[in-house]
Amino acid sequence: MKKAERFLPEEWRITEQEYCKDVLEEYASIFFTGNGYLGMRGGLAEAIGCIGNSHKGTFINGFYESSPQVYGEAAFGFPEERQAMLNLPDLTEVGLWLDDEQFCLDRGVVREYRRSLLMDEGLLSRELVWESPEGRLIRLESLRCISFDRPHLALLRFCISNISNTKRLRLVSSCHMSAVSHRNLKSDPRTGAGFVHDPLQTIDRRIDGDRLYIHQQTARSGLHLGAGVAHVPFSGFKHVDTVPGLERIDFVYEVETNRGQTFEFDKYISYFSSIETDWPDRQIPLSLIRGELSRAESDGGQLIIEEQRSHLARFWEAADVVIEGDPLLQQGIRYNLFALYQSAGRDGMRNTAAKGLSGEGYEGHYFWDTEIFVIPFFARTFPIIARKLLEYRFNILGHARARAEVLSEKGALYPWRTINGVEASAYFPAGTAQYHINADIAYGIQKYVEASGDEDALQEFGAEILVETSRLWTSLGFFTDDGEFRINCVTGPDEYTAMVNNNYFTNIMAAGNLKYACEVIAKLRSADPAWYTDFASRLKIADGEPELWLKASEEMYLPYDSSLCVHAQDDSFMRKQRWDFSTTPEERYPLLLNYHPLVIYRHQVLKQPDVVLANFLQGGRFTRIQKIRDFDYYNPITTGDSSLAPCIQSIMAAELDRLDDAYNYFMKTARMDLDDINSNVADGVHIASMGGTWLSLVYGFAGFRDNGGVLSFSPRLPASWKSLSFRLRIRNMILSVKIDHDLTEYSIAGAESGGACRLEIRHRGTMVTVESGIPAGVSMKRELKAVIFDLDGVVTDTSEFHYRAWKRLADERGYVFTREMNEKLRGIGRLESLDIILEQSGISLSAQERFEQGELKNSYYKELLKTIRPENVLPGIHSLLKELRAAGIKTALASASRNAPEVIERLGMSGDFDLIMDAAAVERGKPDPEIFVSAAEKLSVEEADCAGIEDAAAGIEAIRSAGMFSVGVGPSAEAADWAVGATEELTVSRLVQEFGRR
Amino acid sequence: MKKAERFLPEEWRITEQEYCKDVLEEYASIFFTGNGYLGMRGGLAEAIGCIGNSHKGTFINGFYESSPQVYGEAAFGFPEERQAMLNLPDLTEVGLWLDDEQFCLDRGVVREYRRSLLMDEGLLSRELVWESPEGRLIRLESLRCISFDRPHLALLRFCISNISNTKRLRLVSSCHMSAVSHRNLKSDPRTGAGFVHDPLQTIDRRIDGDRLYIHQQTARSGLHLGAGVAHVPFSGFKHVDTVPGLERIDFVYEVETNRGQTFEFDKYISYFSSIETDWPDRQIPLSLIRGELSRAESDGGQLIIEEQRSHLARFWEAADVVIEGDPLLQQGIRYNLFALYQSAGRDGMRNTAAKGLSGEGYEGHYFWDTEIFVIPFFARTFPIIARKLLEYRFNILGHARARAEVLSEKGALYPWRTINGVEASAYFPAGTAQYHINADIAYGIQKYVEASGDEDALQEFGAEILVETSRLWTSLGFFTDDGEFRINCVTGPDEYTAMVNNNYFTNIMAAGNLKYACEVIAKLRSADPAWYTDFASRLKIADGEPELWLKASEEMYLPYDSSLCVHAQDDSFMRKQRWDFSTTPEERYPLLLNYHPLVIYRHQVLKQPDVVLANFLQGGRFTRIQKIRDFDYYNPITTGDSSLAPCIQSIMAAELDRLDDAYNYFMKTARMDLDDINSNVADGVHIASMGGTWLSLVYGFAGFRDNGGVLSFSPRLPASWKSLSFRLRIRNMILSVKIDHDLTEYSIAGAESGGACRLEIRHRGTMVTVESGIPAGVSMKRELKAVIFDLDGVVTDTSEFHYRAWKRLADERGYVFTREMNEKLRGIGRLESLDIILEQSGISLSAQERFEQGELKNSYYKELLKTIRPENVLPGIHSLLKELRAAGIKTALASASRNAPEVIERLGMSGDFDLIMDAAAVERGKPDPEIFVSAAEKLSVEEADCAGIEDAAAGIEAIRSAGMFSVGVGPSAEAADWAVGATEELTVSRLVQEFGRR
Repeated sequence: MKKAERFLPEEWRITEQEYCKDVLEEYASIFFTGNGYLGMRGGLAEAIGCIGNSHKGTFINGFYESSPQVYGEAAFGFPEERQAMLNLPDLTEVGLWLDDEQFCLDRGVVREYRRSLLMDEGLLSRELVWESPEGRLIRLESLRCISFDRPHLALLRFCISNISNTKRLRLVSSCHMSAVSHRNLKSDPRTGAGFVHDPLQTIDRRIDGDRLYIHQQTARSGLHLGAGVAHVPFSGFKHVDTVPGLERIDFVYEVETNRGQTFEFDKYISYFSSIETDWPDRQIPLSLIRGELSRAESDGGQLIIEEQRSHLARFWEAADVVIEGDPLLQQGIRYNLFALYQSAGRDGMRNTAAKGLSGEGYEGHYFWDTEIFVIPFFARTFPIIARKLLEYRFNILGHARARAEVLSEKGALYPWRTINGVEASAYFPAGTAQYHINADIAYGIQKYVEASGDEDALQEFGAEILVETSRLWTSLGFFTDDGEFRINCVTGPDEYTAMVNNNYFTNIMAAGNLKYACEVIAKLRSADPAWYTDFASRLKIADGEPELWLKASEEMYLPYDSSLCVHAQDDSFMRKQRWDFSTTPEERYPLLLNYHPLVIYRHQVLKQPDVVLANFLQGGRFTRIQKIRDFDYYNPITTGDSSLAPCIQSIMAAELDRLDDAYNYFMKTARMDLDDINSNVADGVHIASMGGTWLSLVYGFAGFRDNGGVLSFSPRLPASWKSLSFRLRIRNMILSVKIDHDLTEYSIAGAESGGACRLEIRHRGTMVTVESGIPAGVSMKRELKAVIFDLDGVVTDTSEFHYRAWKRLADERGYVFTREMNEKLRGIGRLESLDIILEQSGISLSAQERFEQGELKNSYYKELLKTIRPENVLPGIHSLLKELRAAGIKTALASASRNAPEVIERLGMSGDFDLIMDAAAVERGKPDPEIFVSAAEKLSVEEADCAGIEDAAAGIEAIRSAGMFSVGVGPSAEAADWAVGATEELTVSRLVQEFGRR
Repeated sequence: MKKAERFLPEEWRITEQEYCKDVLEEYASIFFTGNGYLGMRGGLAEAIGCIGNSHKGTFINGFYESSPQVYGEAAFGFPEERQAMLNLPDLTEVGLWLDDEQFCLDRGVVREYRRSLLMDEGLLSRELVWESPEGRLIRLESLRCISFDRPHLALLRFCISNISNTKRLRLVSSCHMSAVSHRNLKSDPRTGAGFVHDPLQTIDRRIDGDRLYIHQQTARSGLHLGAGVAHVPFSGFKHVDTVPGLERIDFVYEVETNRGQTFEFDKYISYFSSIETDWPDRQIPLSLIRGELSRAESDGGQLIIEEQRSHLARFWEAADVVIEGDPLLQQGIRYNLFALYQSAGRDGMRNTAAKGLSGEGYEGHYFWDTEIFVIPFFARTFPIIARKLLEYRFNILGHARARAEVLSEKGALYPWRTINGVEASAYFPAGTAQYHINADIAYGIQKYVEASGDEDALQEFGAEILVETSRLWTSLGFFTDDGEFRINCVTGPDEYTAMVNNNYFTNIMAAGNLKYACEVIAKLRSADPAWYTDFASRLKIADGEPELWLKASEEMYLPYDSSLCVHAQDDSFMRKQRWDFSTTPEERYPLLLNYHPLVIYRHQVLKQPDVVLANFLQGGRFTRIQKIRDFDYYNPITTGDSSLAPCIQSIMAAELDRLDDAYNYFMKTARMDLDDINSNVADGVHIASMGGTWLSLVYGFAGFRDNGGVLSFSPRLPASWKSLSFRLRIRNMILSVKIDHDLTEYSIAGAESGGACRLEIRHRGTMVTVESGIPAGVSMKRELKAVIFDLDGVVTDTSEFHYRAWKRLADERGYVFTREMNEKLRGIGRLESLDIILEQSGISLSAQERFEQGELKNSYYKELLKTIRPENVLPGIHSLLKELRAAGIKTALASASRNAPEVIERLGMSGDFDLIMDAAAVERGKPDPEIFVSAAEKLSVEEADCAGIEDAAAGIEAIRSAGMFSVGVGPSAEAADWAVGATEELTVSRLVQEFGRR
């Protein structure tokens, strides 16, 4: 079965249709259920001895055990303790006996099977019909509910129907005492190793009728765990025995049965840990667990399930993203949002692990994933969750301060990976060296505060984090003699490069951190001087300290390659060899599992494109042409070996009007786990990528931007979708957005406080006002608003003159030059053309000679140009320009030739264009899109509303790269969106028609 | 007791004079004995229960156990197995009972005590008189001999005298069965961790009368060990019992005794391992051990001791270095040479561990230390040992090839640290990334072949290593578009910087490797075409491959800072912040134990100066001025946290005539272990530093150079030494060199083959011929051969003109300028002077304005210069110049002023100097020594034979930095070697007198 076809294309469910032993581990991740506090993998409840248990897992978010971190060669400041989220002892097991036959899917015949994750209800259900080897037939229905309203409670519901041949039904609920780690022992650094010691020790256990209470503590990390299980038998089930084994306690229930009878059984499980309780000596009072179980029993399973459904309804009301026209995609998106909601900590004492609550991959650690990929989603849907995730960061600030000191820096350095706040990365070049975590957290604070308007959060915790992270930066970096602020020896998000100087991402994010800290300080200082005085004195903020941060931010050095006009990933990146992808076989991806780090570090190759990510996160700082160049440089060398890459590539492709790219990257993220694209879902789902899906939709296709106060949208809908809708929290309001191919509709869907609600939004550069009850609909149609003309071969044909000028030069010097060669020079600059001619003749010149011969050819050409006259305008161009003007469509001439103004003058067309681009002001020639992008900018028209007309392949490439509709004239330009044989075919009506068709 | 006073200053012995329990571990390292195959720490033979045993250790060089290498986060290509030299089960233990009292130094009274390492005899002896708590008095003499002639044999000799009160003497020889690791468990990366498992398993053990045979094998590494012990009791000792415990076998001897009687007892121990034997199934035949022990018994201890003495006499004959005038130093040097000789493997199957056979530090691993610090010594004293060490490299070439493949490279990559040839470094940024190991090995081959003339070695193994190492380089690096060959992402020897691009040391050593490979290939190809055809076909040497190596060598990029005119340690080094030494407390050295690697990597701070080392190893490639600048740049930022640093700093300081520096650095290496300078001798001695001592003497003070065929000496003897003598192997000859303050005497001390022997040697630039029987004595006296004059303030005084020119400019523009400020401008260039003036007035100018004002001042100055006349020559200068010429002493004018020729002309002195330096040709002004160094070069006089005369502090600094005698005129130049108040005091006689006095 193809992975993409494993589940039915249901919008609200993930349904497995047949039992398959091979995928137990993968599906256990996919079918995980959780409530941010408690999580369970989708393991089958049946007894261990029967079908293995590597699929099982019960986790409390943040409940971990530590063990000594071992190094072959240690050094000062290496973390000494490893932390790993514990897979708690299994309390979910329920075995069934039909008379003396044990129910087991691996034996007998599975007649029916259906397991569904009900995302609208927050439940995991299973229905099956099984025939035992001896011919007993039963139906089993089970339901798992990890309650969002009761974070310490899980409900397991069983319903067994005796279809035929069973006389006595026995149910054994087993409660295990030992924690088992299923962490992968293969040498994949993305997983982790198990424990050598027994991580969890039982202090006390009590059997009380149908109930079991357990008190355990971790061997090294000092955490306590209280758990309770209550069994509620219905329909005549009798508690016949309790077997209190050392490692396992069995509660045995039996009932005599006749054909056709149905029996129900509920199992409640409750957990409390010393992380969230603060009783003396970290004890977990029995009364707490007893109370939780008793309340559940007395409320009953049905009520708990109803609660869950209402809870989910509220979630989807705020967070749902609807895509009409693609059920598989719709399913993928909902799955991702649901997994995020199930995994995020909500009490300030835990965060969101890289694998959420779905598995032990990355040891349950928290990374930058939270702030960059998860918080933006919650900030715009459930701001309170975003706040709680940030409160966690505040709660571990003490550890971050201590870590900075170990690293000989001031302020605070957040751990790259951690559970309890202490740095736990065992490989510092791709761990502690990722200082950018500090700036990512600052970014998360800014995103949250801007979205929610919750400025109290700054006083409560945000400002303090901002001060301490800023201090780290000014201590870590330094001002050079030239006054630049530089930061050496760090690793950026792209872990295929390590320990470099001036990582672009790190520097620009640090600049953002520093600047925001100053703004917040200044604001709070003037808004609440008394508070600020206290704050400044408590944090010992020195005179001039915020000014220093601002200066570092403003003088932050950003590496730039001025010959390629792209941002350099770091100081040394551009001087490395490019990775040779042509000789890299498929099976050696991901590179990190198949090449030594030294080999990877030595080359230009990316795990994820951090320059591109920076250009998104700090998008307001850069021009479109810069973003295009950076994207085009880094995209081809990005392997996407990181699950965090494609969503970012999708967002930036959308911004640059590369809609196909945007769609293709997006599809890699939207169903990454359901389709197991990276073949490692068994270790758990990819939480950051899931957040990235939402980012791709809202920031990518809807083109939402919220940098610097102004909210803007620039929607671009893939052709295969009918519509895209979602809601966003805008301070106290909820904005509903629905995008289809005709219209984008903005409306206020609700507001927290009463009063009139009104929002100003920029839609594709135009301001739109939305008010409560007054939605605004804006056309989605792209209209042709400007046409940008190449000169040579489009407006006139000087190629003959070029040919003759080159030919003259060639003949004088004995170079080979033919008409065929001349064709190849279309769209190519003067000196590059000369190089091609010289290469043909095997001649090399000094720079000076090369320059002189170029000048000479130009002088020949200019002589010939003097003969050009209005009659030389190509057929149809005059009328096209006239029609365009009549239709209100702007026109520009974008020629790379410095002779263009003279030619236009001689052609008598000086007044025919709205804009004639100055070739001298252009940094890079075609195929760089600069001249087209600049023309659109000068005409104040979006690129997507422009067409460009070109006769050369390099020109078509430039138009496409600019995100415009490309029109090709002649044989060299057939790759254009619309290709014509000659200029006379160009008419406004055809042009508008073709433009509309794309 | 001060560490430096712990041992008597005896030239041939290391003597401990009193028993001290506190230093057992340190002394166990210092008193180690070994023969390159077998080594024992200087542990006391007495029973374990009595005084602890952490000081004991028995090692077979290269006999190791492996264990899984554990990583917190592993990655592809990380070594999977740890290797550690095993501390073998202790067979040395001998306990004594005086009646029922056990002999134990920690009880009773030690009446006499003396333990000596007899370096001239190759023996460790101990003599003591002990009084038991109950008043029994004995004398115990013991001797330990690890035979050089019989590598598998150790002899322990005991002689016990009953001085009084003992009736029965009991001697218990214990043989332990289990290996114990005493490796330090503190978190010092320079030590290593022990094993979790029991590393050595006993397969068989046999007791045969007075003998024991043991056959053991390692648990994981698959090595076998055969050991035997033979007891030879004399003087009536009776073998009364054998107690075959599981972990220990005791052989018990007794004798009845009267007062004054003396008893002797010999214990022979023999070891064989499967490394050097190749019997089937790695068995160690019993007959081998039995034979070794029987031969020893029948020869008797006395003969074995005599053999040892003769062996050592031959060693010292070849290797001794004599320093008259400093017994402590003499002792230190001999100790170092002896330790090298005891530690170096001699059979091609083992090498020289970083701690030799003295301890478990660095886990008994082999590093680059061998080729850079050890082989140069043996190549010039015992070439066969150098050859065997290189044969080891040939034997592990297969592993090196496999390692290159894992690292995605061609050819062979040698392990940074290893025992069995497989890479064992667990921290690759300071391990595998040290690709320079390849070039170091090539360097070792070249040193060996050049010294010994053994060109067969090239055919046998050298050429193959050179080919494979060269292949690694051309695969690892790449040619840029500019044709430069660059090597990215490596770590140089200075581990305080990691994973950088174009490490200067690595690149230049790689260039040497590539070049030498080409030379060797070309030579062998023409000398033995048939052999070469086979060779080339076996190694698949492609057409053009050696040419590619040569090209890479020639185009090798060497990073250079053109503003500072120094070689950059790597591409990014010069842009890092300098380490702030002023705020680094003493107790935070060595930095590696007290700062996180990220902090260290981020700064300009060195563990060892690898640019300086490269300038020594590839010295022929660089000018003196370059070496001075590099030395002066890197020396102040070198912590010397590596024991490999000071010897190199000493050598280069000597070459640059910084004799005080050379001496001080040297003293850190010569007694590093005896005085426990780095406080870690307990882990073992510092083998590389020991080799470095010899290098410092021969290459440093004697100024020996053997690059490129010509042998040269440039001896510089520290004032406190009477003389320095040593012998060097020059192909088949032995050259004896004796340097004292008057004379260096070269003589041929022997030759391997008959025939006339004749050597051409360059002594301080002059060729000297030495023939058998005809020694050559060359004067050591430094003679004043040239005097180099500053112009301004020495020859004439234009400072008044400068003052007036600056004053005029200042007055015109309203700058502050006083006579006092003018004084500060002495010796300072024009623009720098202007900057000082501007800074005083708080003014900043554009580069253009600055340049213009400088020009303007110069024009004012040149106007004033027109008034200068012969009368303006300062008093005494005319006569001084005349006298110098008469005395045959050359003269030069070295002024930084471009006006100098004009001034000299106006002074009428155009013919008075042998050389007038062209200021325009000088890259850097004073205090850079360039102008003085260039002058000496142009005059063909060594710097040490020159004097420079200056009136400015910067000038004096430049002269000193050039290694010349400095003469200061006036108040600003009082720091000179000889300072006078005014020029009239300068006479040739005084000058020569003062010059001779330094």
